[in-house]
Amino acid sequence: GAPLGSITQKNIPQPTNPMKSFNWSKLPESKIKGTIWAEIDDLKAFKVLDLDEFQQTFSAYQRPQKETDDDSAIVRRVKELSVIDGRRAQNCNILLSRLKLTNGEIRSAVLSMDEQEDLPRDMLEQLLKFVPEKSDIELLEEHKHELERMAKADRFLFEMSRINHYQQRLLSLYFKKKFAERLTDVKPKIKALCLASREVMKSRTLRQLLEVVLAFGNYMNKGQRGNAYGFKVSSLNKIADTKSSIDKNITLLNYIVTVLEKKFPTVMALSEELKYVPEAAKVNMMELEKDITNLRSGIKSVEAELQYQQSQTSLGPNDKFVPVVRQFLTVASFSFSEVEESFVEAKDLLGQALQHFGEDSSKLQPDEFFGIFDTFLSSFSEAKQANEDMARRKEEEEKRALLEAKMKRDREQKAKKVQINVKGDEGGEFDD
Amino acid sequence: GAPLGSITQKNIPQPTNPMKSFNWSKLPESKIKGTIWAEIDDLKAFKVLDLDEFQQTFSAYQRPQKETDDDSAIVRRVKELSVIDGRRAQNCNILLSRLKLTNGEIRSAVLSMDEQEDLPRDMLEQLLKFVPEKSDIELLEEHKHELERMAKADRFLFEMSRINHYQQRLLSLYFKKKFAERLTDVKPKIKALCLASREVMKSRTLRQLLEVVLAFGNYMNKGQRGNAYGFKVSSLNKIADTKSSIDKNITLLNYIVTVLEKKFPTVMALSEELKYVPEAAKVNMMELEKDITNLRSGIKSVEAELQYQQSQTSLGPNDKFVPVVRQFLTVASFSFSEVEESFVEAKDLLGQALQHFGEDSSKLQPDEFFGIFDTFLSSFSEAKQANEDMARRKEEEEKRALLEAKMKRDREQKAKKVQINVKGDEGGEFDD
Repeated sequence: GAPLGSITQKNIPQPTNPMKSFNWSKLPESKIKGTIWAEIDDLKAFKVLDLDEFQQTFSAYQRPQKETDDDSAIVRRVKELSVIDGRRAQNCNILLSRLKLTNGEIRSAVLSMDEQEDLPRDMLEQLLKFVPEKSDIELLEEHKHELERMAKADRFLFEMSRINHYQQRLLSLYFKKKFAERLTDVKPKIKALCLASREVMKSRTLRQLLEVVLAFGNYMNKGQRGNAYGFKVSSLNKIADTKSSIDKNITLLNYIVTVLEKKFPTVMALSEELKYVPEAAKVNMMELEKDITNLRSGIKSVEAELQYQQSQTSLGPNDKFVPVVRQFLTVASFSFSEVEESFVEAKDLLGQALQHFGEDSSKLQPDEFFGIFDTFLSSFSEAKQANEDMARRKEEEEKRALLEAKMKRDREQKAKKVQINVKGDEGGEFDD
Repeated sequence: GAPLGSITQKNIPQPTNPMKSFNWSKLPESKIKGTIWAEIDDLKAFKVLDLDEFQQTFSAYQRPQKETDDDSAIVRRVKELSVIDGRRAQNCNILLSRLKLTNGEIRSAVLSMDEQEDLPRDMLEQLLKFVPEKSDIELLEEHKHELERMAKADRFLFEMSRINHYQQRLLSLYFKKKFAERLTDVKPKIKALCLASREVMKSRTLRQLLEVVLAFGNYMNKGQRGNAYGFKVSSLNKIADTKSSIDKNITLLNYIVTVLEKKFPTVMALSEELKYVPEAAKVNMMELEKDITNLRSGIKSVEAELQYQQSQTSLGPNDKFVPVVRQFLTVASFSFSEVEESFVEAKDLLGQALQHFGEDSSKLQPDEFFGIFDTFLSSFSEAKQANEDMARRKEEEEKRALLEAKMKRDREQKAKKVQINVKGDEGGEFDD
């Protein structure tokens, strides 16, 4: 029936024993009006339903069951109370059996900030998935007098719900354990951005290369495409699209490499001056930005939790949160502020580098920008290799030609000598 | 060198014969200042480069080549001019050889709006990828006096560039050819949304089902989770998460199905009243919205092109654009306005349906909303099937038990009879 006032208590029949629950999402009473629910009256259904049978079938008490088919199997004497149901309880049980710790041991580990290293990071990650929710706690509270009857998962959730700020403690511990690794992930990316930005701006050989490409392009191109003062860096990877009309295996890139080797040999060491470009090409700025934001907000959360725990009047003797976290934060804040500073510098240098090439920094991400150079460096060294192969083949052919010529000459001389010897036994060994 | 004024003409050496081009993206002269290009002077490079050799290697004239290794191979007499280069020319050649039409035939087909059905839709799609670009046209214009020397792709692009509004004609033709199919794609989706929305609002069995589920839920759930007037539709798919404490193979859904069969048998025909729900569950609203927007803007573009073509003073005798498109638009606009109206109606009904279940229409997309019901219908019929299987097994077991009992009785009677016969040859066949 439609609610008349706010939070109307319905006259619902009550089961005599605790029952399993149905984890639905209630519609707030305020939203019922005008919906199908205003036309629905469950009290009508109750008149028809057999609630005794229902109560029996979905009782919160588990039936005594044989544990296994093993010979030693015994029938459990006490009925088990299981209020948390379904896959959640099942997965929680799997976690607990993998952890191989009692609830008491887990509790101590959490309170002591895992002094004894009982909680590996992957387990912490799992534990965070089974933090008792408000609705769990409510349900478990109703049955706390039957603690010893509770099923494994229920009991675990109940005991953890007794730890003050259990979730925040877990999160702080997890953050602390992951912090060093996350910093180590982020630092080389920032470094690569800084150094690669400097490299592309300073490289003399890159500038020389661009000059040669610009010259050839301006010589070939006519009309609107010609008479250029510069081109977008992405054009570097289109050089190989232009093919020679003499031999289509020779691209404009092969040709330019040959010219550079002859006329500007220093340019061949291009990749030496752009050492950090390949690494910078792998940096996704969005992800990096997100990683740093997450580190920042992580530290803030742990700081907030430290303040909260410091404000607590009675802390248990095994509760190490305050001293451990205080020390961690001192070190972590310092390391993080260094990272933040270098990140600001990296973004600044990157902006300069993009501007230096006339690119729009709002359109070109660093992985694209450095990716262009990285791709070009690969094509460049492939073209170099192809040219060397060709030169070697040519050299070998020349050698072989020389050798063949010599052998031919030798054979002819021999034949001549034999002829001479046959003609008459003259004394001279050599005919000149 | 840095430009001093705007559009400064550089003093670039000129090749004596046409050359291949390098398809770079020029940086606008206005963007050069402050970039690396301001420090780069290609005129310096020209002093060092061997431009004669370069010109020879990248001449626009193809070298005469043997066509194959075949014995019949002949050396082409005329040098071929190839200004469009690389993969683009190659792919264009592939398209042309698949089309098996001369340039003249393609031209007539485009002008006549493909009267003779020479251009299948997939070919049109391909042709749209090889519309001559401004830079192509410019380049080809320079060489139009050498038309008979042009390579296949160059010549094709050149000839198509001579058709007035070639691209717009292709696009209009493509739109016309696809229109009926696109309408046929969209209509059943709109219909499914309308009908499924009506179904979920009107279904009496659905309402009865919700009433029973609400009753059972309220009976089991305590505290904040209990005393509900309604629940979110997504809760329907959580019913099966609650398992019986007597037999964990029996879920709350199995149980409810059993109860419905006994007490509310009409509800078993639920899927009959929600026939269009499965189809509506497949409709992605964003895509549908996009499809309709595209149809609308497609019609507008074709209309604009019709206006343009009507305003042209001289149209060739083979140019059928105006009459063909005018007739097409008359029919298409009418069909599309029908579709638009039914789409407005569908959105309206969908909004009503969401509201009817107390759902927020801004949060729940139709595929999610109907998807919930669709998933539930499947689970519901599976549970029904499982119950039937169980009932059948039970019946069979009972039959077998009865049969066994009868056979046992028969055997006993037989034995008794034999005993009697053995005892003495008395006359009576039956012992009662």
